[in-house]
Amino acid sequence: MGTCWWKVIFVLSSISLSIAFEYKKEKFAVPLDHFSFVSNETFSIRYLINETYSANNPSAPILFYTGNEGDIELFAQNTGLMWDFAEKLGATLVFAEHRYYGQSLPFGNNSYDSPQHLGFLSSEQALADFSLLLEYLNPSTFSLAKKKRPVIAFGGSYGGMLSAWLRMKYPHVVVGAIASSAPIFQFTNLTACDAFNRILTSVFATAFPGNSFCPSNVRKSWDVMRQVNNNLKSASPEGRTTLNRNFKFCKGLNTTDDLAKFEDYLSDVYGNIAMMNYPYSTNFIANLPGYPVRAFCNNLRKSLNDTELIEALQLSLSIYSNSTGKAKCLDIDSSYDSNLGDEGWDFQSCTEMVMPMCSNGKTDMFQPKAWDFDAFSNNCFKKFGVRPRLQQAIVNYGGFDLDGASNIFFSNGLLDPWSGGGVLRSPNDKIKIMIIPESAHHLDLRSANPADPTSVIEARMYEFNTIKDWIKSHWE
Amino acid sequence: MGTCWWKVIFVLSSISLSIAFEYKKEKFAVPLDHFSFVSNETFSIRYLINETYSANNPSAPILFYTGNEGDIELFAQNTGLMWDFAEKLGATLVFAEHRYYGQSLPFGNNSYDSPQHLGFLSSEQALADFSLLLEYLNPSTFSLAKKKRPVIAFGGSYGGMLSAWLRMKYPHVVVGAIASSAPIFQFTNLTACDAFNRILTSVFATAFPGNSFCPSNVRKSWDVMRQVNNNLKSASPEGRTTLNRNFKFCKGLNTTDDLAKFEDYLSDVYGNIAMMNYPYSTNFIANLPGYPVRAFCNNLRKSLNDTELIEALQLSLSIYSNSTGKAKCLDIDSSYDSNLGDEGWDFQSCTEMVMPMCSNGKTDMFQPKAWDFDAFSNNCFKKFGVRPRLQQAIVNYGGFDLDGASNIFFSNGLLDPWSGGGVLRSPNDKIKIMIIPESAHHLDLRSANPADPTSVIEARMYEFNTIKDWIKSHWE
Repeated sequence: MGTCWWKVIFVLSSISLSIAFEYKKEKFAVPLDHFSFVSNETFSIRYLINETYSANNPSAPILFYTGNEGDIELFAQNTGLMWDFAEKLGATLVFAEHRYYGQSLPFGNNSYDSPQHLGFLSSEQALADFSLLLEYLNPSTFSLAKKKRPVIAFGGSYGGMLSAWLRMKYPHVVVGAIASSAPIFQFTNLTACDAFNRILTSVFATAFPGNSFCPSNVRKSWDVMRQVNNNLKSASPEGRTTLNRNFKFCKGLNTTDDLAKFEDYLSDVYGNIAMMNYPYSTNFIANLPGYPVRAFCNNLRKSLNDTELIEALQLSLSIYSNSTGKAKCLDIDSSYDSNLGDEGWDFQSCTEMVMPMCSNGKTDMFQPKAWDFDAFSNNCFKKFGVRPRLQQAIVNYGGFDLDGASNIFFSNGLLDPWSGGGVLRSPNDKIKIMIIPESAHHLDLRSANPADPTSVIEARMYEFNTIKDWIKSHWE
Repeated sequence: MGTCWWKVIFVLSSISLSIAFEYKKEKFAVPLDHFSFVSNETFSIRYLINETYSANNPSAPILFYTGNEGDIELFAQNTGLMWDFAEKLGATLVFAEHRYYGQSLPFGNNSYDSPQHLGFLSSEQALADFSLLLEYLNPSTFSLAKKKRPVIAFGGSYGGMLSAWLRMKYPHVVVGAIASSAPIFQFTNLTACDAFNRILTSVFATAFPGNSFCPSNVRKSWDVMRQVNNNLKSASPEGRTTLNRNFKFCKGLNTTDDLAKFEDYLSDVYGNIAMMNYPYSTNFIANLPGYPVRAFCNNLRKSLNDTELIEALQLSLSIYSNSTGKAKCLDIDSSYDSNLGDEGWDFQSCTEMVMPMCSNGKTDMFQPKAWDFDAFSNNCFKKFGVRPRLQQAIVNYGGFDLDGASNIFFSNGLLDPWSGGGVLRSPNDKIKIMIIPESAHHLDLRSANPADPTSVIEARMYEFNTIKDWIKSHWE
């Protein structure tokens, strides 16, 4: 399968973690297949646990992160909100790793080598892992009179989808779920395929209020680069010199495919800096300055001729690709390294997590690109030997119909491209909705920071009070 | 595995159906495995559909039977309540066959030949089949403004467990569920293993008010037969003659194993006539007279010596084994023929549907028999190559904790041995409970009959009004 340009949005690169929080690392055996009995095999998922705040309180709440597509330590270190809440609530912290990511590999290094090994990677199996782990950590009392400890699920992005679904499918294991930036409507027929890019573009358009040159320049840049590429194809020294000199590629572009790869890289970068458009510098999926979209747009907020545009784009890119100022060249392979997390999400996208994406070049700053399900499906079959099950997510998790659900808190930042697939309206009074105007992708899940916008601070307060209500109801 | 004495309670023998209701028979393709992607195989489940009452009304309700362990036509013919309700509601009727039963065999006649084939038999897979079928019959509208048709799930016994679980796990596909005689608490640590036999015995004790000789005589009969058997073992012609002459076995007893087989047969019969203790003659799992427990106890309601006891027992048994009066001999293989339905439920009992059973000979009329999980597990491994997953039903479906559930109507007859594992108290105002003093096993699901007790008539009215409320709420 060709690299999907929206892929990296969910990919977590292997940036070295700055360890702010500490925990014990544990293993827990789960069935390879929870729902069939062809095999009795088991394997271990990893989880992190910290009991500092709960001490020996047998009724202390448990704050439980439903791990998504990456090493669980990354999420533990970037979900400071749970640590803040755990201290206030006297709660135990648990971060559970999603099967097939990090160190939770059913077949070790062979986990990704065939459909026979990879086939047990699904959201349903992951939720069953989490439920079984919770039964171990917080056993059923088998008594109507004696209650278990209240568990609150947390998650961001796909992890937020999982926390919501855990509450929907296993309401007996979690009394409520905080689902931050969880695009549970990002499926076929639920959300327009261009929503992500439209919102992404609006973030670039509003980086400097009243000045929308930045997305216009980006939109123009694709054609400019194509023109240069056409020169490249005819082996024009001028074209090659221009691009390679400007962008300082580690491996110079030589073919149209190389250019397409660079275009994918750029699209990934734009998505990533919009998602990570936090008010302070972070290193969650890249080392980024505060408000990176603004930093990126700084050089692009005026009319530029072709030459100026390429120079400005290169300069802008460096905030993402060369934050240290020490990189000697631009490595466009690096944002989509074929690491496990990446490959795993690709497989999930090819089976049940099919999220149609497209662009039109008008309401967004990208090249027009239709959503071609057949081509997508063929690529999946070529790469993994599987075809997408288009209906599965909707039939299994309900699509728009959340009437039967309760005790889920959906938060979405309006600066987050994923908010288009988020739950923005409540179907009933047991589903809480928080729209956070000044938040990018699950900023509310991070630790409090002096640079936090007011709306994020308010969201966290609302989340905290909602959790307290859930816990109170649990004991009633 | 030795025959489990409580097994037949769930077994549906192949009695010829009296066809009272008509329908189209259809097939629907489902994935062999909904939750993993090792295989892309599909197969067809069968369903029955009748649209007489809904005509072409595009918003007509759908009454949906969640098929349990047997041929779906048997359930369609014995769930007259749905037909009565469909007429009143102008509803479409659908009866969906459970995978691995009836004609819904993933691997045809080879479906039961190995764990590789049988492994995809699970309640979770069956629920996913039902949901996918409902998405086909009643597609998502992909619009918050346009609602789907309201679907009400129905089921009795294991089918009732499935209807409740369908609502719990897939609230977006069914607006409510009627779960009749659904022992969703009949799992380890939830319900005492002797509950079933205790209740069964009480049914025998109250067949003739103020006269409890019947269960006492049954309790005594085990020892009497053992004594005769001891004579048999020493080849006493007298013992053999006594038993074989009295019971007219098609194959005479020769060994202790033969006697054990007969004991299993008797236990099965007692369970079956208690479950089917309907006020009028039926042929659901056997041809039985009205109030068969009373008919059985008629000859046993006085003090009897050993010889009299055996003679009376034989006479009583004939109401079950020789309802036509034409049987020449007693075939004790017939109640546990190894038909598909039987084998399938055995497998489900050996994987996730582990329902501990025991007897003590004091509060029940059986021989003392402890619940021996290890022996049970070893037998499962020997027979199927699988070990029970004891926690699965509880972790997956929640055990006692139904706080997150809504719109389920649990009805239980107090004459039903399974009521011990039923939901008899409501956790919240969205779960409706109906205890029916005069009902045996899901009598409320049958067509109205002049012999119906008042409490059953009332239960049906309450069920009907509850369904109307669910449908009304759906459209609001």
